[in-house]
Amino acid sequence: MAGIAEVARAAGVSKSTASRALTGAGYVSEDTRARVRDAAAALGYVPTTSAVSLVTGRTQTVGVVMPTVDRWFFAHVLEGIQDALLERRYDLALYSAPPESDARRAMFEHFLARKRFDGLIAVGIEPSAHELERLVAFGKPVVSVGGYDIGTNAVSIDDRAAGRIATEHLVGLGHREIVFLGGDADARRTSYGDGQRLAGYRAAMREAGLEASLSHVPCGVSMPGGYAAAVDLLGDRRSRPTAVVGVCDEVSVGAIIAARRLGIRVPDQLSVVGIDDHSYAEMFGLTTLQQKPHQQGRAAVQLLLWQLDDPDAATHRIYEASPLLVRGSTAAVDDEASAIVGAGPRTSG
Amino acid sequence: MAGIAEVARAAGVSKSTASRALTGAGYVSEDTRARVRDAAAALGYVPTTSAVSLVTGRTQTVGVVMPTVDRWFFAHVLEGIQDALLERRYDLALYSAPPESDARRAMFEHFLARKRFDGLIAVGIEPSAHELERLVAFGKPVVSVGGYDIGTNAVSIDDRAAGRIATEHLVGLGHREIVFLGGDADARRTSYGDGQRLAGYRAAMREAGLEASLSHVPCGVSMPGGYAAAVDLLGDRRSRPTAVVGVCDEVSVGAIIAARRLGIRVPDQLSVVGIDDHSYAEMFGLTTLQQKPHQQGRAAVQLLLWQLDDPDAATHRIYEASPLLVRGSTAAVDDEASAIVGAGPRTSG
Repeated sequence: MAGIAEVARAAGVSKSTASRALTGAGYVSEDTRARVRDAAAALGYVPTTSAVSLVTGRTQTVGVVMPTVDRWFFAHVLEGIQDALLERRYDLALYSAPPESDARRAMFEHFLARKRFDGLIAVGIEPSAHELERLVAFGKPVVSVGGYDIGTNAVSIDDRAAGRIATEHLVGLGHREIVFLGGDADARRTSYGDGQRLAGYRAAMREAGLEASLSHVPCGVSMPGGYAAAVDLLGDRRSRPTAVVGVCDEVSVGAIIAARRLGIRVPDQLSVVGIDDHSYAEMFGLTTLQQKPHQQGRAAVQLLLWQLDDPDAATHRIYEASPLLVRGSTAAVDDEASAIVGAGPRTSG
Repeated sequence: MAGIAEVARAAGVSKSTASRALTGAGYVSEDTRARVRDAAAALGYVPTTSAVSLVTGRTQTVGVVMPTVDRWFFAHVLEGIQDALLERRYDLALYSAPPESDARRAMFEHFLARKRFDGLIAVGIEPSAHELERLVAFGKPVVSVGGYDIGTNAVSIDDRAAGRIATEHLVGLGHREIVFLGGDADARRTSYGDGQRLAGYRAAMREAGLEASLSHVPCGVSMPGGYAAAVDLLGDRRSRPTAVVGVCDEVSVGAIIAARRLGIRVPDQLSVVGIDDHSYAEMFGLTTLQQKPHQQGRAAVQLLLWQLDDPDAATHRIYEASPLLVRGSTAAVDDEASAIVGAGPRTSG
């Protein structure tokens, strides 16, 4: 059977380039990759894992650290990572455990310390626990997904801008009583990105001279969490806002379902805006800022493999675009419609 | 530093029992495990991965094969597997790719063939592609989750019984026009379990003498999929049933949202039953058959580790209970209410 040397010779490249082209470990132009693969196919060459490991000294495994897989964002980042790793013939070692849990502590103390990976992708990690710092200390490349970074390679949307743009959209429609729904009161279990979205809402409200109307209603970051909090918030006529910014689409959809249950018309009596463009957003006509976590997962793999290929390369901070998609859940404030259901006093716009 | 021999001596057990107790690889009684751990703690013994591998000849890794992580069932099975593996100090290698995709084929040809795992947990695999047979052929222990097995260790609910019980609940309430919603027409991309649920519905309809009313409406197995199909189904007064069995809660919740959108009252004009007890079921008052995929994931790990410990042990087929939870989405058929919205002719019950 042909060896890597024959493949390299046939393709007119070095052995290490041929190895990179076949293993996916490191950057090779599409052109070169195609030429090497053609040569390998023509010669009947099949790289084996152990041979690859001996050449590269690598595990051909990428570790993925995340708090949960049962949330749209995390599931889609994970699928993006998996897709990209399958293409590169890398294995994916999953390390998933909720924040502040015993399992999470054990993960950092025992599992990650075994370093059975060439590099890590850390999704939605906790800055308060210095998790990213601890991951970097293992001495392997780390890419952060979800907002927080310490000069490491990182991918996310600009969460602060997303919170600001969502709020400004409502302000532009004449809304004054705008509530931010989601996350917890002390922000300890809120993800870094969620906290940034809240900060963006606060900034936009202040800039619009609406500091007195600032209102953050904490709730679980899920559809039932948003639903339960919105039933309370909207059920009380005295506190009912004319608009809600959800920390994410799951919370926003929960608020829309609560409004329907209470007979409050969206958007006539209540405007709702989300952040994500979740797979449920369209069926609820939700106005939202779109992000593509699957793409973020793929981008994280690309950054990690670049770093594996060239440990001295400069790090990158990629902000994915998050355009505003205006659907049917937001409209200009209607003083009459709001008054019918007894909205509180409001400074007219 | 103390070695495994000293720990075993102090705990009064054999070296292999002490190793099993500390690595979690194989069955040890809770009592013995506690005694060995106490001895290890007292002696300051810390097992290292490489030492464990040298002793056991194992990778201390379990591979998990699933079609997607972006569905409630799969996300929760995966979290259950992860929890149990973290406790046993095993790594989790994820192999996730959709049915009939190139990635799925590559997974079977290249990744799984590398056998970088001690055993596999196969969730929702495709019988038509003989996937389970191919996994077993790798010569490592395999546990199947999600209904299909070939004499391997397996965990699932009894999906056929679940479909039957959901249907019988509606028949008992006097419903005659009962539609089964979900899955695709030719069942090629439907999971094995989903197909069994449909078979259970068919059996119950036949037993109730309702063969002429049998109606399967295919749709994507998701909330938007159920919503879109239900808008079509319920929007046409001639074809509108009095009750719907969703292949899973996501589809059933989509049907409830569609009914609300069309002004059809649940349960007065339409009864809806699901299967799963999804985290959204309660907020929609959905009557459903409860399953606990997190528990199924944990049970799969237990079965796999038993088999690793004793390759000659008999295999187990665990059916998790799936009790009917009656909430507010199902009620006795109301001929008057149904007639108001123009339901088609019906044999009176």
